[in-house]
Amino acid sequence: MNKFDVIIIGGGIIGSSIAYELAKRSKKVLLLERGRLASEASGAAAGMLAALVEMGLEVGPLFRLALKSRQMYPKLAHELRALSGIDIGFVDKGMLKVPLTGAEALEFEEIIKLQGSLGHQVSWCEKAHSKEPNLGQHISKVMEVLEDGQVDAPSLSLAFAKSAEALGTTTKEFTQVDDLLIEDGKLVGVKTLTENFRSDQVVVAAGAWSKNLLESHGYPLKTYPVKGECFSVLASQQLLESTVFSHGCYIVPKKGNRLLVGATAIPHTSDKKVSFQSVQSLMEKAKKLLPAIAETEWEKAWSGIRPQTDDGLPYLGMHPVYENLAIATGHYRNGILLSAVTGKLIADLLDGIENEDLHAFRLDRHTS
Amino acid sequence: MNKFDVIIIGGGIIGSSIAYELAKRSKKVLLLERGRLASEASGAAAGMLAALVEMGLEVGPLFRLALKSRQMYPKLAHELRALSGIDIGFVDKGMLKVPLTGAEALEFEEIIKLQGSLGHQVSWCEKAHSKEPNLGQHISKVMEVLEDGQVDAPSLSLAFAKSAEALGTTTKEFTQVDDLLIEDGKLVGVKTLTENFRSDQVVVAAGAWSKNLLESHGYPLKTYPVKGECFSVLASQQLLESTVFSHGCYIVPKKGNRLLVGATAIPHTSDKKVSFQSVQSLMEKAKKLLPAIAETEWEKAWSGIRPQTDDGLPYLGMHPVYENLAIATGHYRNGILLSAVTGKLIADLLDGIENEDLHAFRLDRHTS
Amino acid sequence: MNKFDVIIIGGGIIGSSIAYELAKRSKKVLLLERGRLASEASGAAAGMLAALVEMGLEVGPLFRLALKSRQMYPKLAHELRALSGIDIGFVDKGMLKVPLTGAEALEFEEIIKLQGSLGHQVSWCEKAHSKEPNLGQHISKVMEVLEDGQVDAPSLSLAFAKSAEALGTTTKEFTQVDDLLIEDGKLVGVKTLTENFRSDQVVVAAGAWSKNLLESHGYPLKTYPVKGECFSVLASQQLLESTVFSHGCYIVPKKGNRLLVGATAIPHTSDKKVSFQSVQSLMEKAKKLLPAIAETEWEKAWSGIRPQTDDGLPYLGMHPVYENLAIATGHYRNGILLSAVTGKLIADLLDGIENEDLHAFRLDRHTS
Amino acid sequence: MNKFDVIIIGGGIIGSSIAYELAKRSKKVLLLERGRLASEASGAAAGMLAALVEMGLEVGPLFRLALKSRQMYPKLAHELRALSGIDIGFVDKGMLKVPLTGAEALEFEEIIKLQGSLGHQVSWCEKAHSKEPNLGQHISKVMEVLEDGQVDAPSLSLAFAKSAEALGTTTKEFTQVDDLLIEDGKLVGVKTLTENFRSDQVVVAAGAWSKNLLESHGYPLKTYPVKGECFSVLASQQLLESTVFSHGCYIVPKKGNRLLVGATAIPHTSDKKVSFQSVQSLMEKAKKLLPAIAETEWEKAWSGIRPQTDDGLPYLGMHPVYENLAIATGHYRNGILLSAVTGKLIADLLDGIENEDLHAFRLDRHTS
Repeated sequence: MNKFDVIIIGGGIIGSSIAYELAKRSKKVLLLERGRLASEASGAAAGMLAALVEMGLEVGPLFRLALKSRQMYPKLAHELRALSGIDIGFVDKGMLKVPLTGAEALEFEEIIKLQGSLGHQVSWCEKAHSKEPNLGQHISKVMEVLEDGQVDAPSLSLAFAKSAEALGTTTKEFTQVDDLLIEDGKLVGVKTLTENFRSDQVVVAAGAWSKNLLESHGYPLKTYPVKGECFSVLASQQLLESTVFSHGCYIVPKKGNRLLVGATAIPHTSDKKVSFQSVQSLMEKAKKLLPAIAETEWEKAWSGIRPQTDDGLPYLGMHPVYENLAIATGHYRNGILLSAVTGKLIADLLDGIENEDLHAFRLDRHTS
Repeated sequence: MNKFDVIIIGGGIIGSSIAYELAKRSKKVLLLERGRLASEASGAAAGMLAALVEMGLEVGPLFRLALKSRQMYPKLAHELRALSGIDIGFVDKGMLKVPLTGAEALEFEEIIKLQGSLGHQVSWCEKAHSKEPNLGQHISKVMEVLEDGQVDAPSLSLAFAKSAEALGTTTKEFTQVDDLLIEDGKLVGVKTLTENFRSDQVVVAAGAWSKNLLESHGYPLKTYPVKGECFSVLASQQLLESTVFSHGCYIVPKKGNRLLVGATAIPHTSDKKVSFQSVQSLMEKAKKLLPAIAETEWEKAWSGIRPQTDDGLPYLGMHPVYENLAIATGHYRNGILLSAVTGKLIADLLDGIENEDLHAFRLDRHTS
Repeated sequence: MNKFDVIIIGGGIIGSSIAYELAKRSKKVLLLERGRLASEASGAAAGMLAALVEMGLEVGPLFRLALKSRQMYPKLAHELRALSGIDIGFVDKGMLKVPLTGAEALEFEEIIKLQGSLGHQVSWCEKAHSKEPNLGQHISKVMEVLEDGQVDAPSLSLAFAKSAEALGTTTKEFTQVDDLLIEDGKLVGVKTLTENFRSDQVVVAAGAWSKNLLESHGYPLKTYPVKGECFSVLASQQLLESTVFSHGCYIVPKKGNRLLVGATAIPHTSDKKVSFQSVQSLMEKAKKLLPAIAETEWEKAWSGIRPQTDDGLPYLGMHPVYENLAIATGHYRNGILLSAVTGKLIADLLDGIENEDLHAFRLDRHTS
Repeated sequence: MNKFDVIIIGGGIIGSSIAYELAKRSKKVLLLERGRLASEASGAAAGMLAALVEMGLEVGPLFRLALKSRQMYPKLAHELRALSGIDIGFVDKGMLKVPLTGAEALEFEEIIKLQGSLGHQVSWCEKAHSKEPNLGQHISKVMEVLEDGQVDAPSLSLAFAKSAEALGTTTKEFTQVDDLLIEDGKLVGVKTLTENFRSDQVVVAAGAWSKNLLESHGYPLKTYPVKGECFSVLASQQLLESTVFSHGCYIVPKKGNRLLVGATAIPHTSDKKVSFQSVQSLMEKAKKLLPAIAETEWEKAWSGIRPQTDDGLPYLGMHPVYENLAIATGHYRNGILLSAVTGKLIADLLDGIENEDLHAFRLDRHTS
């Protein structure tokens, strides 16, 4: 095996997006995944591109990053379909956010003002049922966000990886990286159970498991795993057009009248088991938002383990010790949304291009 | 294809049990199944052998049949394991029936008296939690039925069929019988999409679908399909030893700390889809019986379509028009329990042995 | 349940395409399927749009129908994606047909002449490896058909049904039609296990099972079931761009570097089991065409039961006895390709529009 | 979380057997598994208890260990069924070993002499077809080993773990141990992504992945992963009674007329993908042994990653550096067979009981 330009550890959506961006720049990339591509959080996500809905009043660096990423999907959908044959399920039918309390209604009011002043199309829809007739009768007005869309997360993750492969990237599944390969104090590649691989640069994009790998190299990441549980049902006709979002529960209409309902947030566990009580709790919330869901067909439940950070911002930057080691993890609930821009910015970083957008996400932000 | 002694239509638990019994008597049997063996109600059942728990005060012919069948399982378990290698999961840890209302408590009181007078071990367990510590705190006394046990229904159904095969029976899956084959007014076999099969005798044991086949032959069965929905969870330790049964919900402890929760009863549908609201309703009831179920791992939901009759008794007898046509269907919720004795009695019937036990279940019972 | 304009029996690709076309014409449609939508032959097909590759020298009515249908897919792909969210996987990368014998090479020579004279782009590609470098070394020249493309068959079938639903069609799965509903000698609807449905017109599009339904109504179809077995593998990079086709074996490149290999043709069986020897035989042929397939990952095998007719032409026409009963079956290996045009022409027929294209496919063709 | 007596790393058959044995001795055990119990090699194995068939002429310590283990299964089958409800599928119908060459026939001759002199029932069966009528016609005499039996490997592995749970063991799935927890040079527990666990003793039974964990602790194991690929088919009747074994291929008859065919041996890979060529190669060999397999139904293929050692002997002993750390890995193809005795001997070892049987398998055997 010859030497690679870049080895990426982690075949989820972040690692695959970086691989795709590097492959476009003619880099010789090796993408290593301990299981199957897109088999962890990336394959479990609901795929909302919810920049405004998720961040509302937080109009800082993460919000700006989210906006940049969100606008990349229409073009990306075409590129990836052409290269890999995979349709990423991009839909731009907007999102509705339902206030469950008076306090939330006031908060949404503020969001509408703030985002409106920033030029975004966020507004009250006073007649929620004229837009989505199947919403619960107790719901009157909802916040409408026309710009936020959605994709099929597992398809997007796989489309990044397969498009990267089509451009020359080598992918190895069932290949767990046990450690970084350090020689004379320099990072020169990675170790696996069966062989070592060498490269000029290394990217750690292993989601919740990134921490394990970096722990013994003097710079522990302040991340922790957060389990998110979901389920899906099949309707016999279209019950929703927009994604509906409220505190603790969202319903995303997918192709073929599938509805995806999420998501719990159980911190500090990597156990992917979906609990009885989580299913029960999500069902109850979903039925309040959309009573007609009671008639749908139960399909299945699943979960993913998301990487969260202590300060809620992802880590996107170079490792303070090894100058050829980049980190991209901690995207929490925004991994799908941020994947496109993360791929681009990490590729820039590896090319030596400093980007102001990443300043807030560098690894040494707590100490500087 | 040579002529068979008996063709059995339906590869569920009833047809397979009959095939097994006939094969033991050296009959040349053809067992026809339109899909896979044990793929409908038989593969969906919880496997309770609940003679006393289900029938309590109904101590008529069905109850006597149930008792006869129940006592056959211990020996059958050994026979079938030896012939097919399949363990039918026979467990005799008893059942607990929980009264949910005062009226039910009074009814159980009567059952205890009546069944006690008949010599059965049915009694109040005043300290339910000393027996099953994880039952809901609101539950005080429960009716304990030591004799009722359980099996793994899909395994039992398959074990009957595979043991029959080991004794010479021919099984054909994916073979739908379209019609009876009548020549000169006599039944001589069956028609399928691709060929006709001939036999001396025919048995219809096609569960809820038996009616379709017989409709055009002058003797419509008074049966209708009833959907039963279930789900299972996986506990990290044993939460129950006995099966727990209450109005509208039972929880059956299976091997490997799996709990099977059932079952709805949705009449007049053959649509196997499990609905959101059925799952929700069963979960709520199960959590009242066993609050610790909240912590278990959600596994999956499924359903089966049971054949019910207008008067609630199965049809076990010869067809009034064709003297070489036997019918065995309409077992509703008791198909697993009754399968063993049904196999034996139908085989007797085909051998010309009249049995008093079957009198109440003959096809012409409504007109005589 | 009110009366429908049209009841369609069979939720495969033909029934679903007809439903879609009728729904576009604002008809009130009921689509009945005994199992799941697209669960039989339609869900098992490789999805080739192989008008020229399959028919080569047979430039009669079936060929003309195939050409008409093939040209409908580019537009249809957009329509169905917009209505149902489902991407049908349309790809127009052409097909290569490999001559395995001298006789075949001569036959291809004729096809090229004939089709060239008809204006089609069919030609020898003398350097097969310059086009597809991974083809077997023994392969020199191949027949190249630029116009023939492919789709994802299960997606197309579901997209038709879901788009019809979006336009108002009612779909019922797990609903087996037991018989036509005849009153006073007139067809007025259909019977199922649980209820009767009424409509002005009925379409039988039940594939291999259409015959069963019509048998007792005086006009037995001359069709028989033919099992087709397939398997798929996953390559770590793209091994083929075009579909490769030879006698007894084709390899279709699907999204994500999946290769679909088909297909056997086992007549007179409805048993969907894939046999060891069929897998072995297909593997051997595929490896000759594409030796690099040896390194791919084995995924799975499956089968479908296709409806073939005695004269090899589908039945597309009105029933000779019931003037409001249309039949559309017998598409054999061309069901995916012909689905688009079949939907349109059967809808025309129900609208009373006679179409010369259907003349050769009418039911009474053998007697006239 | 309180402190445990013993933490076992690895929920495969070895770790689970050790947990079971410790739980029987009233130890407070924590069994940690990074994925699901029995999800790697233990869940993929064919379950042969092939002491004589596998080892024939190697009558050293490994053979003696194998014999001891093999005799434990009849009793174990009852114990585990009673505790967990799981039937381990124990069958003692013997094995037949087919010589493929003259050299092999000579070798078998020697085995028969040697094993006979040791009192084992190994003999030539001159009329192979009188015993197994479906064997290939080219097969004349076979070596018959009456004592070697088989179990269902996934069931046995799960039965150990669930029986341990029934006796008080705590099991945690989806819990990857990242490192040993060392304090003041002493081993005091293990580290995981989310928490540390403490115990008096630790056992590493992580199969092929044991090496990763121990590498950074000064005593690298000389093990490497070997992929084994298998497939299964379903026969419509029993084709074999005994297990049939030959160079590079065995066929194990399982319950319900399933035949399990294995296995390849691809060293130095942890990639679980089953390759096209492995499937093809195994099919070819299986068809030579049992031509009638051609008619069976193809079911599926899978693989497991076995831990092999440089000298072919498992590591069963205490770690040279940490006196409270035991290792049990490297069982290669004998993990199922050796699991019972391994559980017992490692439990003895942790109890301070030295056992001569383990001498040959200690970790420092190469240096002493």
